[in-house]
Amino acid sequence: MGDLKRIAVLGSTGSIGRQALDVIRALPHESKVIALTGNRNLRLLERQIREFQPEMFWSAIKPSVDYGGQFLSAEEIAGHPDVDFVIVATAGRAGLGPVLAALRAGKTIGLASKEVLVMAGEIIVREASSHHAQILPIDSEHSAIWQCLQGEQSKPHRLLLTASGGPFYQYSQAQLAEVTPEQALQHPVWKMGKKVTIDSATLMNKGLEIIEARWLFSFPLDSIQIVIHPQSIIHSMVEFVDGSLKAQLSWPDMRLPIQYAISYPRRWPNPELPRLDWSKINALNLEPIDYDRFPCLKLAVDAAKSGGTYPAVLCAADEVAVQLFLDHRIGFTDIARIVQQTLEQHRSINQPSLEEILAADNWARERATQFSRGHCQEPAAGSVTRQRDKT
Amino acid sequence: MGDLKRIAVLGSTGSIGRQALDVIRALPHESKVIALTGNRNLRLLERQIREFQPEMFWSAIKPSVDYGGQFLSAEEIAGHPDVDFVIVATAGRAGLGPVLAALRAGKTIGLASKEVLVMAGEIIVREASSHHAQILPIDSEHSAIWQCLQGEQSKPHRLLLTASGGPFYQYSQAQLAEVTPEQALQHPVWKMGKKVTIDSATLMNKGLEIIEARWLFSFPLDSIQIVIHPQSIIHSMVEFVDGSLKAQLSWPDMRLPIQYAISYPRRWPNPELPRLDWSKINALNLEPIDYDRFPCLKLAVDAAKSGGTYPAVLCAADEVAVQLFLDHRIGFTDIARIVQQTLEQHRSINQPSLEEILAADNWARERATQFSRGHCQEPAAGSVTRQRDKT
Repeated sequence: MGDLKRIAVLGSTGSIGRQALDVIRALPHESKVIALTGNRNLRLLERQIREFQPEMFWSAIKPSVDYGGQFLSAEEIAGHPDVDFVIVATAGRAGLGPVLAALRAGKTIGLASKEVLVMAGEIIVREASSHHAQILPIDSEHSAIWQCLQGEQSKPHRLLLTASGGPFYQYSQAQLAEVTPEQALQHPVWKMGKKVTIDSATLMNKGLEIIEARWLFSFPLDSIQIVIHPQSIIHSMVEFVDGSLKAQLSWPDMRLPIQYAISYPRRWPNPELPRLDWSKINALNLEPIDYDRFPCLKLAVDAAKSGGTYPAVLCAADEVAVQLFLDHRIGFTDIARIVQQTLEQHRSINQPSLEEILAADNWARERATQFSRGHCQEPAAGSVTRQRDKT
Repeated sequence: MGDLKRIAVLGSTGSIGRQALDVIRALPHESKVIALTGNRNLRLLERQIREFQPEMFWSAIKPSVDYGGQFLSAEEIAGHPDVDFVIVATAGRAGLGPVLAALRAGKTIGLASKEVLVMAGEIIVREASSHHAQILPIDSEHSAIWQCLQGEQSKPHRLLLTASGGPFYQYSQAQLAEVTPEQALQHPVWKMGKKVTIDSATLMNKGLEIIEARWLFSFPLDSIQIVIHPQSIIHSMVEFVDGSLKAQLSWPDMRLPIQYAISYPRRWPNPELPRLDWSKINALNLEPIDYDRFPCLKLAVDAAKSGGTYPAVLCAADEVAVQLFLDHRIGFTDIARIVQQTLEQHRSINQPSLEEILAADNWARERATQFSRGHCQEPAAGSVTRQRDKT
């Protein structure tokens, strides 16, 4: 108590943002909302503003009613002196500017938006280091690794990210080609936003997480591996040089990694967070992943190894392709194809500036959109053909 | 390197002692044997002395050959200025004196002999604290908990000791009564000394571990629980106040907890230690334990709750009963019965002195032996009757 954390929630109307507010609501003696930002869901943002009465807020559409708080940009909020802790839960590259603003003001960031690190990991790590700012993971896998690394003085041997495998882990290529957005949005374990749910089904999400882990933990890509774990109880593991492993486990609930980032280095009791019940868990299955079955995973790892602007292009092309799939304009297996074609045509820049990263992002969005058009003009199978009239 | 740990291995001819020497042998730049003590296996001790050339040694039978090292008592060795780290791997109460001597000299102890803490936990914790000495666990479950607690600033919610369940986990009471020492010595996972293997089969070992954990981690008994985990890959877990759990995993191999205690707070690479291979582990099973099925477990928890000299009596009666079982003089289910009868007849002393603990231990050994005689005079089933002629 007394030491109230004053929190800015950027992206408060999204899935992670709403769960962050659940955590803060449950811990009124430990945390307080100081700022909120939403994008276009003004109705929900207004409800949140009325409840939490933030000092500052922002949204893509400026509300007509005066709520008492200041209307400031996300960058201004992220670097504001009244803010102790910035939760970045915005979608895609929108988090990039606020993250840099927060780091330059020496803030502690709880980062849920992995795209930011995938696109500009090198710049972000450099800025964090030179301003003594901290980036704490909110992704469940990275929170798990971070929890397992606490108190360890020796560099680990391997990071093992667990993957549920998504809803189509056992599907053949032919079955995958027929998958609809409605099927792909039914994630077996986690309730998440649409983009990350589709990325989980293609395993692109796991690829982005490898890149995220590389930057968060300054760890070599080749020593970050994936283990399939369908129950999503073990959120990730760290293997040490002596052969010992540590794993972090919990009921799958994003509020836990969110709260841990806020409470770190302590832990707070929260009766609303679920506890594991061993009478309901019979077995935790674990098996090595077959990297070849998941082209998006391989594309992500290759883009990370090539470096430069490739990871930004990977991110942007994937965002476009996922949206096209959600709009029924391409098939499920076209996502990997469009990302691959975009990467193949990209001419990467080494050690890119922020401007060069954003330019690569723009180029990739345009290119990926063109590929989808090109693709749709060919005679294609399944949902692609059926949905052509909609374009 | 340079910072060589000078180690005394007490009980070097036993199972843990030999594995401790394996670790030191594999890490010649990090550790060095400075002293060895054995009991009656003089032939093995002499071999170890020739290999490691310790400055000091002790054995129950003084060797006739002069090996160059000093012949000192285990207590003198444990408190000797040349020793940095004392591994206590002696059997039963034999470790009590050396542990106290080491603590009073402010040494760091790697404790494998849980009986010492069960008998005299309160005295030992007090001595450690007043001499700023450290007790590091070598038991695999306690090492796991200790590893999971590293870097955590908030007191945990629960400690979860995993138990393989032993070789007879699925047996009925009638089947248990027929179990022979030869069957009980076949532990499904761990290769250990005879006493601890039988204690694993009765789950007395898990009961002693609960008491050990209570003292090592200053933790309330009711918050130390058992989870059945047949594969013995997860060595134990810690549940925190926010619902997060950490688990420590490895291939079951005692050299890992031994090495971790020596290398702490760092970890050392050791190519001889096995690594987990996820292609060989399909599932980790976990289930709540049925406390009622294991009378020894219940006896241990009850003795710990009652406190005083009860835990010492539990230990001593169990040691006698296990030896009688190994000698084919009582049946498997008689172990719990003898321990229970001895506890029932005991008049405990609160906050006992060391002398009172040792007196209770002596009393319990005599009493348990009498119970076994009384038992053998009755007409009894199975191996008990068959083996009566041997007494």
